[in-house]
Amino acid sequence: MLVKSQVKYIQSLGQKKFRDEQGVLVAEGTKIINEFVQAPNMELVQLFAENEWLKENLHSLKESGKQQVVALKDGELGRISFLSTPNQVLGVFRKPKFENEQPEGHICLALDNIQDPGNLGTIVRIADWFGVRLVICSQHCADLYNPKVVQAAMGSLCRVQVLYADIAAFLQKWPALPVYGAFLDGMSITQTAPIQQGILVIGNESKGISEQLRPLIQHRVTIPGTGNAESLNAAVATGIILSHLKG
Amino acid sequence: MLVKSQVKYIQSLGQKKFRDEQGVLVAEGTKIINEFVQAPNMELVQLFAENEWLKENLHSLKESGKQQVVALKDGELGRISFLSTPNQVLGVFRKPKFENEQPEGHICLALDNIQDPGNLGTIVRIADWFGVRLVICSQHCADLYNPKVVQAAMGSLCRVQVLYADIAAFLQKWPALPVYGAFLDGMSITQTAPIQQGILVIGNESKGISEQLRPLIQHRVTIPGTGNAESLNAAVATGIILSHLKG
Repeated sequence: MLVKSQVKYIQSLGQKKFRDEQGVLVAEGTKIINEFVQAPNMELVQLFAENEWLKENLHSLKESGKQQVVALKDGELGRISFLSTPNQVLGVFRKPKFENEQPEGHICLALDNIQDPGNLGTIVRIADWFGVRLVICSQHCADLYNPKVVQAAMGSLCRVQVLYADIAAFLQKWPALPVYGAFLDGMSITQTAPIQQGILVIGNESKGISEQLRPLIQHRVTIPGTGNAESLNAAVATGIILSHLKG
Repeated sequence: MLVKSQVKYIQSLGQKKFRDEQGVLVAEGTKIINEFVQAPNMELVQLFAENEWLKENLHSLKESGKQQVVALKDGELGRISFLSTPNQVLGVFRKPKFENEQPEGHICLALDNIQDPGNLGTIVRIADWFGVRLVICSQHCADLYNPKVVQAAMGSLCRVQVLYADIAAFLQKWPALPVYGAFLDGMSITQTAPIQQGILVIGNESKGISEQLRPLIQHRVTIPGTGNAESLNAAVATGIILSHLKG
């Protein structure tokens, strides 16, 4: 059963300030929670679960050693959920821990001011799909632990390392890595040869890649379109370019 | 100035039943409204605009002959907007009119039960980008005129013809067109030759392409992933596959 202080605590985690203070994130729904419970780099703070979910997952919770669970009565999940349709279980986890991923030998992403939480989460999921293990976010990107980002990333948050840093400084730190950037003009991505390592820069949803980063980009690539849409969604563009760079 | 009956009318258009009865859709924001006002196949029913937008656009409204405008006082847009952050202008338009697009000679999409409005809108925008002019939706897809679909499609709704129909019957009606389908297994899309015409079937977000359609698909294609994400977002997958099929 929920107590008032728990409701208040979880509601407070809708705000970045409180998430940062506590070093935690909130995840929801059977799929993501099952992945996070299994993940060795995700430390559980507290699960809030309906009985149906608990019955099915008691065994795997025991095996994982993650057993801090509050059993919810019917309707209680709605009081703490950030979803319009709550889905059986909500968990508070410590932010995932990673060894420091090195960018060499891989393709990495650098996100320049991606502001929509759904886009950021979807991009992390795309990164995971293509085996990208390191994503650099500029300081003005959405917060990775915004509940909407966590939901859109679908469990990939525990496998992809996301760091907030100055992108120009990051690019300059790795001068041997080729730098690609997504533009509305440039070389067609369908004509671009696959690469083994490099950094792909994706710009803001409406403004693209910022002025001061442009001189640092060696390969301007574009997605050829024959239609009339003014642009593609940033996450969709990331997926298309990665699929061609991975070859 | 808004009157009560207008607020009620627009709120009612949040429901498919009332949109269908009236044959209209609601669009919001400066970008989409500007595109719809210019589009010859979009008939304006009524615009609700803040003064700032009106001042800038009075001339183009006059030129387009679309002049049914209610000027809003400060704060009134929030009473009728479906957005969390209202953006200057909201318009009610009749559903767009199209000549009947023929699938031959082009790539078309068939969406099998795409349920998330954001995904459906994003897919229409992707279709527009790649010059796809015809999208067939199964009856269980989200409603094209749901305000979330309209916003995600970003003006592409007036350029891409979207029809609701039985996909199996549609495929059988055009036996000369090759049929491609997105699966988690199949031929790698990076190894698939570009095509001039054909139908690409995209399945439901969690269940994929439905059983009864599978025998009708000649080319199972897949997006090779080296990571661990269980799947890609349906719109992202559509963009990636189209970018390779268009070549």
